[in-house]
Amino acid sequence: MADYRELWQKLGMDLEKHDVLCEVLPQLYGGIYLNQENRPEGMNYYNFVVAEVHGLRIKELDDHKQQGGKVVGTFCVFVPDELILAAGAIGVGLCAGSQFWIEDGEKVLPRNICPLVKAFTGAKLSGTCPYFQSCDMIIGETTCDAKKKAWEILDDYVDTYVMDLPQMKREKDYKKWAEEIYDLKDKLEKLTGNVITEEKLHDAIKLCNRKRMALQRLYNARKALDLPISGKDALLISQIAFYDNPERFIEMTNALCDELEDRIKKGIAVNKKGSKRILISGTPMAVPNWKIHHIIETSGAMVVAEETCTGTRYFENLVDETPTTMDGMVKALADRYLKINCACFTPNKGREEDIIRLAKEYKADGVIYNSLQFCHTYNIEYANVEKALKEAGIPVLFIESDYSNDDVGQIQTRVEAFLEMIG
Amino acid sequence: MADYRELWQKLGMDLEKHDVLCEVLPQLYGGIYLNQENRPEGMNYYNFVVAEVHGLRIKELDDHKQQGGKVVGTFCVFVPDELILAAGAIGVGLCAGSQFWIEDGEKVLPRNICPLVKAFTGAKLSGTCPYFQSCDMIIGETTCDAKKKAWEILDDYVDTYVMDLPQMKREKDYKKWAEEIYDLKDKLEKLTGNVITEEKLHDAIKLCNRKRMALQRLYNARKALDLPISGKDALLISQIAFYDNPERFIEMTNALCDELEDRIKKGIAVNKKGSKRILISGTPMAVPNWKIHHIIETSGAMVVAEETCTGTRYFENLVDETPTTMDGMVKALADRYLKINCACFTPNKGREEDIIRLAKEYKADGVIYNSLQFCHTYNIEYANVEKALKEAGIPVLFIESDYSNDDVGQIQTRVEAFLEMIG
Repeated sequence: MADYRELWQKLGMDLEKHDVLCEVLPQLYGGIYLNQENRPEGMNYYNFVVAEVHGLRIKELDDHKQQGGKVVGTFCVFVPDELILAAGAIGVGLCAGSQFWIEDGEKVLPRNICPLVKAFTGAKLSGTCPYFQSCDMIIGETTCDAKKKAWEILDDYVDTYVMDLPQMKREKDYKKWAEEIYDLKDKLEKLTGNVITEEKLHDAIKLCNRKRMALQRLYNARKALDLPISGKDALLISQIAFYDNPERFIEMTNALCDELEDRIKKGIAVNKKGSKRILISGTPMAVPNWKIHHIIETSGAMVVAEETCTGTRYFENLVDETPTTMDGMVKALADRYLKINCACFTPNKGREEDIIRLAKEYKADGVIYNSLQFCHTYNIEYANVEKALKEAGIPVLFIESDYSNDDVGQIQTRVEAFLEMIG
Repeated sequence: MADYRELWQKLGMDLEKHDVLCEVLPQLYGGIYLNQENRPEGMNYYNFVVAEVHGLRIKELDDHKQQGGKVVGTFCVFVPDELILAAGAIGVGLCAGSQFWIEDGEKVLPRNICPLVKAFTGAKLSGTCPYFQSCDMIIGETTCDAKKKAWEILDDYVDTYVMDLPQMKREKDYKKWAEEIYDLKDKLEKLTGNVITEEKLHDAIKLCNRKRMALQRLYNARKALDLPISGKDALLISQIAFYDNPERFIEMTNALCDELEDRIKKGIAVNKKGSKRILISGTPMAVPNWKIHHIIETSGAMVVAEETCTGTRYFENLVDETPTTMDGMVKALADRYLKINCACFTPNKGREEDIIRLAKEYKADGVIYNSLQFCHTYNIEYANVEKALKEAGIPVLFIESDYSNDDVGQIQTRVEAFLEMIG
C-alpha cells in the first residue's frame, strides 16, 4: 500500500487518530469477509477497494481537485447523483457505519439519536474520514429529524446545503421536489463554475442508470436458490457503489455478474442446501456496518436481498431516459427519486408492498426488520409493516441496534430462535 | 360535580380505567396547585375548569354535536384554529401530558420516542380521554418524525388528516403552507358541511387574535419584578386555552389580568424578594405536565415565561386583520403561523433570537432548556442555542425528561445547583 500520509495531512486529518482507525478496519474486514468459503473471484476487486479505502480513491479525488474539480458529499439516496456528475463534480456517500466515530459525534450531539448521524458527524469533527475531508460541500436533506438538525451543526465545519424533501407524495409534492432539484442545479453550477447542460445531464442520467442496472443484475443473481454470492458480499458491493468511480464500478460489477451467472448455471453455491433465505428490511447499513449480515450468515442462514437505502431503494426504478429538455429531465429525476418508499413519508403503504413483493421475488423464508437505534420513522413504521407481513403469511423479526458490539450475543440468540421458528 | 358517566359511556370510554385517572388528577393538582400561597382570586375559574376537566366542557362538546356540529382535535400550534372555528366546528388541543397514558401508547409505539406522542396515542387507545373520544376528526402535521408516523397508527382509530409543514422558511415555503391551509379549508368544509365564508373566517381571525391578546396580557403581567402570579398558574392557563370555550376563556383571562395589574400597582407578589427569575425554553408542556415548573418553584425560584408551544409560541404575533378576501386571509394565516420558530425548521436561528429577547423582556436570571425525552429536534438544537446564550451572557441549564417521577430528585438537585450558580 502506497504512503498516503502526505495526502491525508494536506486534507487536515488527525493522523494519529486516523492510524487507530486504520488498524481496526483490516482486522474487522478480515474476520467478517476473508474467512468466507468459496467466494467469487470477482470479489478480489472489492477486497482491493477496501484495502485502498482511504488511499487510491482519495488520491483520485485529490487529482480531480488539482484540476479544479469539486467533490460533494451526500448522505441519502434522495439526492440525485446525476446533477453532481453533470456539474463535473464527484459525489461521495458519507453515511458512516463505524462505532469509531460515535464518541466524537456525541461531543456535539445527544447520545440518544441515530448512530449513523452521530458517526458521520464524528467522522467530520475528528478529521479521520478522508472522504469527508475532501468535500468542498455537503448536500443534506430533511428526511429525518436527526439529520435535519445535524446539518446546522455540521455547517460550522463544512459548507452544507440542504434539500427539503416533501413528507408526502401528492401531485404537488412531485412538483415541489422538482423545484428542489432545480435549486440544487443552481447551487452546483455556482460551486463548480460549470453549466449543467442538457447534454451533460442526459449523459449523467444514462451513467447512473447503468450503475443501477449493474446493481439490479447483481441482486437478480441472488434470486437463485443456489446462491452464487453471500449477502455480506452483496452488501459490501452496494456500500462501495456510493463512493467508487462509477464507470469502474459498473465494469467490475458487471464482470462479477458474469461470474455469478456462470456459477448459477454450474450450480456453484456459497450456501448450504436448505439454508434459510432472509430478506433484510429497514435502515441503511453504511460501511463498515456488517453486523446483522454477519450474525445471520454465521447462524446458518443467508441474506438474499436488502430492502434498504444500501439495497433496493438505491437502485430500483431507472430514471426515464426519454426526455432530453431540462424541464423534462428534472421532472424525470423528481419522478424517479420521489418514488423511493422511505419511512420518512406519510403514509408509506408502498413500502409494505415492496417488502412483500421482494420477499416473494427473492424466495425469502422470513424478513428481518432492522432499525438503527432511535430511528423514529423506521421504528414506528414497523407496527404497520408487521401487520401487513403477518397478513401475507411472512414471518418477521424486529431488531433495533446501534454500532456497538454489546448486543451481538443477544441478537444472535434472537436470530437463531427466529431461524428455528421459520424452519 | 355532576354525574357524567352516561356521557362518557356514550363516547365509548373505558369507564373503569377512566375512574383510575379521575382519582389521580385531583391529588396531583391539589399537591401542586392548591398549596400555593397568595394565589390571585381569578385562579378560581381555572380551578373550576380543572375540576370539571372531563365534565362540563365535554358536555358542551356533546351539546354542539347534538346540534350537528363537529369536534376536531389538534396537536400542534401550527394548525390554524381560525379555520376550525370558521367551519363552525370546535377545536380541542389533544396533546397529552400524563404518565397515565404511556403504557397504552407503548402497546403500538416504540418505548424510545417522545412521551407526548406516546401519551396522546395511549389516551386514544385506552379510551380514557373524553376530548379525544369526542373528536370527529384529528388534524396532525409533519412537525416531527414521531408525530408524523404516529398519525398512521392513529388513523386506524380515528379519521386523521395530516398537514405537511415545510421544513424551511423560504418564500416558496410560505406559498406551500398557504396551499396546505387551503387544503385544510376544503377538508373542514367537507367534514362539517359548512362553507367557510370570508366573513366567518375574518370573524374567527379576530376571535383568535383576541385570545392571543389575552394571553399576551397575562404574560406581560409576569414581566413585573413583584410577580402577581406564579409560573405554574400561568402555565395552567395556557394549557386550558387549548380546549376551553374561546369567548369564555378570553373573558375570564382578561378578568384575571385586571386583578394581576391591580396587584402589580399595589405590590402584591407571589414571589419572595430576590427570588431568581427563570425563562423556560423548549418543548410543549401538555396538561397535566407541571413537573419542571413545580421543581423550580419549590426550589425558591419563579418561572417568568415559557418559550414553548404552551407558551409564547402559541400566542406571539397576531394574524394581520387587514385582508378580507379569502386569498388575503389565507396568506395572512400562512404568514403568521409559519413565523413560529419551532425546532422542526432548519435553520432556526430565529429561535435563538426569541430566547435572548424574552430573557431580557422578562428580566430572567437564567434559562432552563427543557426537552422532552427523545425529542431529536429540540434536543439537537440545544447545541446552537447554548452557544448563542453563552455569547449573550445568559446562564442556561439543559434538562431532558419524560413524564415519570423517577428523575425528579435528580432534576431538583441540578436545578438547585443552577440557581446557586446564577446567584
